[in-house]
Formats: sequence, C-alpha cells, structure tokens
Amino acid sequence: MKLVQDMLQGHRLSLARLITKVENRDSDLAEIMMEIYPKTGRAQIWGITGPPGAGKSTLVDCLLEQLRTQGKRVAVVAVDPSSPFTGGAILGDRIRMQKHSGDSNVYIRSLGTRGQQGGLSHATKEVVLVLDAAGFDVILVETAGVGQTELEILGLAQTIVVVLVPESGDSIQVMKAGLMEIADVFALNKSDRPEADQLLRELVTMVGMSAHDETSWLMPVHKTEAIKNIGIRELLGAIEAHQAYLTQSGKRWVKTREFLKNEVRDILISRLNKSIEAAFLTSSGQDILQQLLNRSLDPYHAADLISGV
Amino acid sequence: MKLVQDMLQGHRLSLARLITKVENRDSDLAEIMMEIYPKTGRAQIWGITGPPGAGKSTLVDCLLEQLRTQGKRVAVVAVDPSSPFTGGAILGDRIRMQKHSGDSNVYIRSLGTRGQQGGLSHATKEVVLVLDAAGFDVILVETAGVGQTELEILGLAQTIVVVLVPESGDSIQVMKAGLMEIADVFALNKSDRPEADQLLRELVTMVGMSAHDETSWLMPVHKTEAIKNIGIRELLGAIEAHQAYLTQSGKRWVKTREFLKNEVRDILISRLNKSIEAAFLTSSGQDILQQLLNRSLDPYHAADLISGV
Repeated sequence: MKLVQDMLQGHRLSLARLITKVENRDSDLAEIMMEIYPKTGRAQIWGITGPPGAGKSTLVDCLLEQLRTQGKRVAVVAVDPSSPFTGGAILGDRIRMQKHSGDSNVYIRSLGTRGQQGGLSHATKEVVLVLDAAGFDVILVETAGVGQTELEILGLAQTIVVVLVPESGDSIQVMKAGLMEIADVFALNKSDRPEADQLLRELVTMVGMSAHDETSWLMPVHKTEAIKNIGIRELLGAIEAHQAYLTQSGKRWVKTREFLKNEVRDILISRLNKSIEAAFLTSSGQDILQQLLNRSLDPYHAADLISGV
Repeated sequence: MKLVQDMLQGHRLSLARLITKVENRDSDLAEIMMEIYPKTGRAQIWGITGPPGAGKSTLVDCLLEQLRTQGKRVAVVAVDPSSPFTGGAILGDRIRMQKHSGDSNVYIRSLGTRGQQGGLSHATKEVVLVLDAAGFDVILVETAGVGQTELEILGLAQTIVVVLVPESGDSIQVMKAGLMEIADVFALNKSDRPEADQLLRELVTMVGMSAHDETSWLMPVHKTEAIKNIGIRELLGAIEAHQAYLTQSGKRWVKTREFLKNEVRDILISRLNKSIEAAFLTSSGQDILQQLLNRSLDPYHAADLISGV
C-alpha cells in the first residue's frame, strides 16, 4: 500500500491518515497491519495511568521534553475509556500539539471513545503498532484508572508508571490494591502538598511488604512536581532502569508473548462478532432469536445453532 | 439438577450456591443456565448508576424498602468493575444484608471483580437471570460510572436510573454527555445542597433539547434525599411509568432481543477464548507464537493459522 510506504518514509500526513483508518476499523485494516507488522518491535512502550486529576498529562509532557533533549523520537497516545466525553480530549490534544508543532520527532494523538466501546483497546494497541513501525523510539500511552479496557490497553506497555497524588485520599486507598499489581514505577505527583510524605511512606512500605525475592523488580516511588518540572529526570531514570531489568531478566519476552497472543485473540473475536451479527440477520438467525424470546430455546443451545448458520 | 430444583422451590441456600457457581464460571454453568432459562423473563430489571459518592447504595436501599411495602420480592446485585478492591463491597454487603436478614423476600449480593475482569459483565447478567428464575419481582443492578463493562452490564436493565449529585461539579459536566444517552430517569440526590436547583434546571433543559417526538420517552428528573427517604415514592413512580411506556411502545421487545443476542455472543466469545488458549498450548500453537515473535508472521495471518489448530 502506498500509504504505508509513505508513512514508513516519514510522511507525517500518511501517518495521521493510517492512524485514523486503524482507529475507525477501516476495511483496509488487516492489509495495513500485515504490511506494518514486520517493521514493529523496536519501540519502547510506556503506560502512564492514575486517577483523574493526578496530573498525568502534565507529567507526560515533562517526560516527552526530557526524552527530546536526549534526541529520542516520541509519540503520545492518550485515551480515556471511562469518559464518554471526547470533546475535552481533542481540545487538550490541540493545545498539546501546538507546543510541539514544529517538531517532526513528536507525534501526539488522543483516541476518541464514542461509538466504539468494544473495540477501543484493540484499536489503541494497533495504533501503537503503527507508531512503532513509524520509527518512534518511545511511545507513551496515557490512560485513566484501571477498568477492564484500561487494563487491556496497558497490556501492551512494557513499563507502567502509576501516577498518584497526596490529596486523592480515600479513593486512592481503594485503588491501591489494584494499582500495586500493575505498577512498575510509582510517581507521587504534586508532592509539595502536605500529605505527600505520608503517602510516600505508605507506598514504600507496601512495596517492601509485597512478595519478592532477589530477582524481583521492587517498584521505586518517585516524588514529582510535574507543573514545575521537578523530579522528572529521576522518574525517567527509574523507567529506564525498569526497561533494562526487563531485558536482563528475560521478562521482556514473557510480556511480548502475552501481548501477541492477545492481539491474535482480539482479531479472532472481532471476526466472530461480525459473523454472529451476520448470522442473526439470516432467516434461520431470526428464527433462533424468536425461539429465544419465547423461552423455548436457551442461549447455550442458541449459541450452538448460531455458529452453524 | 437438584440444586436448580431446590432453588426454584425457594430454597435460599441453593440460590446462594447457584449464584456462586455462576459467578465463578463453574463447569456446570451451561447446564445450570439451560435449566433456568425457561423460568426467566418475568422480573423487572432496573439499573442504578452514577459517579462514586452519589449515594447510589442508600438510594437503592430506599427503593428496596418502598418496594417491600408494596409486597414485591426484591433482589439487589451490586457491582463496581472499575474498583479492583472487593473487600469494601463485601463488607457493605454484610451491613446491608443485616437490615433485611429476617426477610426471605429480599436478596442482596455484591459481585467481586478480582481475577475475572473479562467475564464480569457476562457473569453479572447470568446472575440476574438466576434471580429472575428465583421469582424476584424486581432486580436492582447497582453499578458505578459508564465504562465499557458497566455499559455491558446495564445492557440487561430495562430501566436505567442515573443518580447525580449537585457538588460533583466538573466531573458531572463531563459525564453528562454519556449519561444522557443511557438514562431513562434522573435522580438528583442530596438535593438539599445549594447547587441542586441549578443542576436540576440544567438537566431539565438538556432533556428538553434532546431529539424527541410525541412517541419518545422524556427522561424525568427527580430530586431525592435518600438519607432522609425524601423523594423516593416519586422516583419509584417515574420508574414504574417508564416500565409501562416500554410495554406500550413495544420497546420492551427491542431491548429483550438485543439482550438475548448479546447473551449468545458472550457464550460464543467465551468458548472462542478457551479454544484459543488451548491452541496456543499445542506444538503448532507454540510454533505460530515463535514466528510472531520473530516478526516473520503477522497477527492477522497467525489468527488464520490458530483457528485451524
């Protein structure tokens, strides 16, 4: 495909158009991904998550600028699956893009959530593969919270940074349990607030108490003030240390295998969804539905019948 | 199955054990659902959603008590997919159950989210079918927010009540867009707060501006103070009016058809997931995975190969 060839040669508009096609699950999708896939596997993919209001976007901007001073090409994909409101994301996108508008080594994209709830995590992962093929060194995937879709999206990140803030209080207490399981690095943002040291101590204690041996990665906790660009270099150092750990420990392969299995599964599920949709439109499908409505057929037997249509 | 027969005869422990089997996706699951399905389709299923801290649980308790004075048998299913912390839900469950411990016409259950992210919405829907078969007149499904899992769960509710609170401020502004699309009735809780009338006016204006004709349902907005049991009877009246509207307009059938199609789809996807898992464990599956890792095979071709294993 010409569009893919142009994108691989660094043509920015082709990249944007390819991402839109992937986001919209265009009919060319399979063809695009087949051509792109051999060029992937080089980028570092970092996930940034945390509760709303933790300052994730500001922190991502700081990381981006720091990475640019190292000469790295950086892409940002922002997605908020739990918010049905996309206008804000797109507006934020534009404001963020303006700052880097002259820089061809930066690409920032927000993914809308409207009308494609089911396919959002799959689309996001494939958008990241496109950016990987486009030659970005680091791809930052920014998401909010730890719902099902967020966890699926974060499944493609090699390093996950969980951003917390002191004042989040009770809600953070509640989230911790789940966040402990996915975090590779903690960023304690807005750390000038009075309760910061208390939360820092709690987190360090929690990490220390988690099951580990001498080969385990112990999640570092870093204080940041993204708005003043404080603590960013140290945070970046922790992320880079985790990337090195992944390679040395062999865990990078484990993560990649899991991601690839999920990618194959996502493709097969999306095909199954289409064929079920089509089966219900046939006259036998309509008949099965009618029997379900009459309760003369149960969904498990109906499933057997539908797969035969 | 004896367990199903006992449950259908009103045996409470059998009901609890069946629900646990469904929640845990027990090996008996298909058999249980096949036996239960002909007994379903009689319950009214109401969804209650809204942001955390809106007072959903208190409101659900008020509705439950009001329904009990009408002699109705009531079940409550509470699920919070976005919170990975289940201890709190279970604790809340016990406190709520104590109030109704002597009442065999009330059943309250929280569903845990740990370790079964992918299957939670399917499990919740099948738990509701079990409660329907058990003869509860009204089943209240309480969830938080409007993420993908929550929307899937709410797909089985005939009437959705969205609970808002005045002080939620900006976050509510953000949520409104999505909530407008799923709400059948708005409950404006904690309506003694000063900003309540402002939010009430905004909501009424939004409803009025939404696309509608003379056959449409216009979402009513009701002020409540659940903690003082104020406004509950009026809210209940609005829900009952919506249930009558569903029947008269023929929209009840549209909703039921959609729910049944999704149930069949969920069953087929769960089967596909199992067969993919098994395929990757075979030696051909391992070989496909190795080629994926080498980038000598792309995920779309791998999907073709895996479905043939």
